[in-house]
Amino acid sequence: MIDTLSINVQGQGLHGFTNRLVELVAGSGFSEGLCTLFIRHTSASLLIQEDYDPSARMDLEAWLNRLVPENDPLYTHTLEGPDDMPAHIKAALTASSLSIPIVDARLALGTWQGVFLWEHRHHSGAREVLVHIGK
Amino acid sequence: MIDTLSINVQGQGLHGFTNRLVELVAGSGFSEGLCTLFIRHTSASLLIQEDYDPSARMDLEAWLNRLVPENDPLYTHTLEGPDDMPAHIKAALTASSLSIPIVDARLALGTWQGVFLWEHRHHSGAREVLVHIGK
Amino acid sequence: MIDTLSINVQGQGLHGFTNRLVELVAGSGFSEGLCTLFIRHTSASLLIQEDYDPSARMDLEAWLNRLVPENDPLYTHTLEGPDDMPAHIKAALTASSLSIPIVDARLALGTWQGVFLWEHRHHSGAREVLVHIGK
Repeated sequence: MIDTLSINVQGQGLHGFTNRLVELVAGSGFSEGLCTLFIRHTSASLLIQEDYDPSARMDLEAWLNRLVPENDPLYTHTLEGPDDMPAHIKAALTASSLSIPIVDARLALGTWQGVFLWEHRHHSGAREVLVHIGK
Repeated sequence: MIDTLSINVQGQGLHGFTNRLVELVAGSGFSEGLCTLFIRHTSASLLIQEDYDPSARMDLEAWLNRLVPENDPLYTHTLEGPDDMPAHIKAALTASSLSIPIVDARLALGTWQGVFLWEHRHHSGAREVLVHIGK
Repeated sequence: MIDTLSINVQGQGLHGFTNRLVELVAGSGFSEGLCTLFIRHTSASLLIQEDYDPSARMDLEAWLNRLVPENDPLYTHTLEGPDDMPAHIKAALTASSLSIPIVDARLALGTWQGVFLWEHRHHSGAREVLVHIGK
């Protein structure tokens, strides 16, 4: 069973979509299995992180922006704008796919975990995440 | 088939649990398949690394501690202690889930590979890893 | 269904093998499913990145080499050569396994995505990637 989630983003940062995933799993009828996510982009990624305190997510974003700044003289790939090459590097350092077990018909996330799309560009619009649910 | 491994950690660092995984796979009866691990925490992660020379694991730990130090003035998320925000960043840069094929009824790790839980806090106690084994 | 891909590398950098994966999936007979890759090494990794402009891949490589340089005085694990410890760190920061859905009998990569083996040593030779295709 494969579904496509279209996730709207408004610029850089973590966009949570745990609820939509929880619904998909509930509707799938699987009581036990594996839910695998795949992002179809090279300048955004998938992340499991604390879903409680927004300050943790803001610090995470600020830290990565400092590690991978725009306008680094090292970059030669600059035609698509100053946020493009940093976005590819950030995507390479984070996850393109993620797998979460399904137990008792529910996504078996830990108490504090949420699932996020991490947008690395100043891009606003829709990003596509494929969700595979299997035994 | 989903199992829960409870892994005891004594502070920061790499805690190997390859043997427990090997046992689970042997007991599963699968001769071919996929073993997927998922960690239910946001300040610890999963890692496949060299399992031979402990100096490689110590350097890895020391390098990451230097990249993501405690008490960075950038952090605003500081209520849970100086090791909390660095732990979230380290978890974001490493893996929350991992999949390893099963071939001839055995985990198909390479010669030098071991599976580790990477604890990022000064925390001692138990961490939970879910193990899904499927066709 | 598990296959082994042997991928020849000539030193550090990104080695694309999307075409070989596309062939495997086409030959598998699966119209819908999940394709999971696993690399059997601790100094090379798997990456999904832009497959269009080679300058992006060169910048990615240069950036990671600057972040994780050789001959860092922090390293104690130096017996296997100056490129060994940096290779383990780079592997820890990137992916050992990756899962890509199969839709309409094809690997559901995004328009700009390609699949790469990222060699982190100055090594020339063959690297092994296991490919699991399941429902």
